[in-house]
Amino acid sequence: MEFDLEQGIAILERTPRVLRATLSGLPSAWTDATEGPETWSPYVIVGHLIHGERADWIPRAELILAQGANRRFTPYDRFAQFRESEGKALAELLDEFARLREDNVATLAGWRLTDAQLALEGEHPVFGAVTLRQLLATWVAHDLGHVAQAARVMAKQYREAVGPWRAYLPVLDR
Amino acid sequence: MEFDLEQGIAILERTPRVLRATLSGLPSAWTDATEGPETWSPYVIVGHLIHGERADWIPRAELILAQGANRRFTPYDRFAQFRESEGKALAELLDEFARLREDNVATLAGWRLTDAQLALEGEHPVFGAVTLRQLLATWVAHDLGHVAQAARVMAKQYREAVGPWRAYLPVLDR
Repeated sequence: MEFDLEQGIAILERTPRVLRATLSGLPSAWTDATEGPETWSPYVIVGHLIHGERADWIPRAELILAQGANRRFTPYDRFAQFRESEGKALAELLDEFARLREDNVATLAGWRLTDAQLALEGEHPVFGAVTLRQLLATWVAHDLGHVAQAARVMAKQYREAVGPWRAYLPVLDR
Repeated sequence: MEFDLEQGIAILERTPRVLRATLSGLPSAWTDATEGPETWSPYVIVGHLIHGERADWIPRAELILAQGANRRFTPYDRFAQFRESEGKALAELLDEFARLREDNVATLAGWRLTDAQLALEGEHPVFGAVTLRQLLATWVAHDLGHVAQAARVMAKQYREAVGPWRAYLPVLDR
């Protein structure tokens, strides 16, 4: 499927509601659960998405759209959330994410991007030339990947509890 | 993590809201998307969950709780939804699932199951003896697995569109 701005926004605008429906008010046995050392809980995932709203997607899109001399993206800090979420309740993080995402979707929609703009390039620190279209498709797929991850992390907490049904639940061993 | 009735219900009661937040009003390019032949779209997944509410989880729990002479479960029909969802809009299915799940969670909570009851056994057609506790843990993990699947199926639609970022998005190749 090709990237389509309207279809992409349909996902981006839903993600805060999806995470709220999934996590709000849930016991911390679920929201702080991980897949093992160095893996992320749903709580950590929400903080990671917040950092992306502030530091990644829109700033990178702006860098591309400006087409200035320096089009090289700032490397993404995959650990920022361990600092930035400190002391915050999950409910606060869910509100913060919803607020930031709403603003960012409004910014994106407000640009009314043309095909020519979607084809503009920036410079990824590892991949080199990437288009705005690829960046926006990645924003969408990144959301869906982390929604899937949050559900998978929680499912795995019952890997033993399901007994023999583990054989029928591939999510428990992904 | 051990199965806990209250924590399990916290997931079960959220799933209809999660699926509604994820899928309601979304373009069919997303909700009818699959991972390839013989794989399921989000639309098909919702129908599958509906069939489970009618035919699987609560009927099997009742069979176990009754402790009659025949404790053997009816095999699960993994293809029932292709028949049962026919002609129904996704919005109808989301409503139907929410209604059935609400009733089933009320039934489950109303039983006020004891540890002794959770240890009672039924006979799975393939696995043999399974406990009520394992059945209920499976219900929860099954929900989360299909929520993860729906997000993963949609993410994969942008497998090509993300360009080089595919290397950073493991969900696209799971």
